[in-house]
Amino acid sequence: MYHAMFLQMKKQLGQVDRWLQAAVAFAEAKKFDPNLFMTFRLAPDQFAFARQVQIACDTAKLGASRLTGKDAPTHADTEQSIEELRARLRSVIAYLDGLTPKDFESAATRVITQPRWEGKTMTGADYFLEHVVPNFYFHLTTTYALLRHNGVDIGKRDFLGTLTQKAPTAA
Amino acid sequence: MYHAMFLQMKKQLGQVDRWLQAAVAFAEAKKFDPNLFMTFRLAPDQFAFARQVQIACDTAKLGASRLTGKDAPTHADTEQSIEELRARLRSVIAYLDGLTPKDFESAATRVITQPRWEGKTMTGADYFLEHVVPNFYFHLTTTYALLRHNGVDIGKRDFLGTLTQKAPTAA
Repeated sequence: MYHAMFLQMKKQLGQVDRWLQAAVAFAEAKKFDPNLFMTFRLAPDQFAFARQVQIACDTAKLGASRLTGKDAPTHADTEQSIEELRARLRSVIAYLDGLTPKDFESAATRVITQPRWEGKTMTGADYFLEHVVPNFYFHLTTTYALLRHNGVDIGKRDFLGTLTQKAPTAA
Repeated sequence: MYHAMFLQMKKQLGQVDRWLQAAVAFAEAKKFDPNLFMTFRLAPDQFAFARQVQIACDTAKLGASRLTGKDAPTHADTEQSIEELRARLRSVIAYLDGLTPKDFESAATRVITQPRWEGKTMTGADYFLEHVVPNFYFHLTTTYALLRHNGVDIGKRDFLGTLTQKAPTAA
């Protein structure tokens, strides 16, 4: 399940790349600079668009790294453009793509911590369910919401991507 | 993992109940009708606030029902107030609370379909990863975003709820 969920996150980050392309196309059609999106916010005390994409990426890569023990690529949080955000997405997608089910064998029982927790710990299982998955989809959906709110032509199918469905069997 | 994820969704729906209470408190302080929130949207062609809460509830309850075979409570989608949305949340929370790990024993291999798929099917495992979890968090986060965008005093901790953390061990 851990590996399958991170493959799902990889798929979702691929969808974000499509939203960013739709944002660029929208900006070109309306003749404004697509990088204006970088600083948009839904509320003045919520992170801006670029930071939402950065954190979605980081939640996936650091979650996988903490649950497998495999080093993740580092990113300096210096992206100034949609194109640079797209490069970050590709970097995290490539990292997730290199993980195997075996890498997650001891994920559930690992002891997880991070600097801001001041010494507190979580089991890998709780960290995954209560922290990684909710935070990942939070920042993903906030990214999507900012684009929808500002008129970019994307919809729910672009959020979910293609579903693994089987055709109806003949009657 | 299935049962644990649905318990996590139960926890998240409990957080939504807190956001709704914060929305009512905000409306009272600002002297407007809290039920004005019911029709707010982030984009004209996106579902309104009340529908976002309804679908978050339905994604959890129908997901659990399809993966376990246990009937879920029905809701008529007639809520006209924040208080009625809170009642729906309580109903779904109670349903999820009654499920056990054993109920999900054959979840991964069940054949799932729904009317709008026109005969197409998904395995329970794919349905859970690609449809239930992303849709649940999508509608949850959109609900949260609408409140944040309109000034309600909630933050990321209110989104996540309390984490299951262990205190630091003595040095």
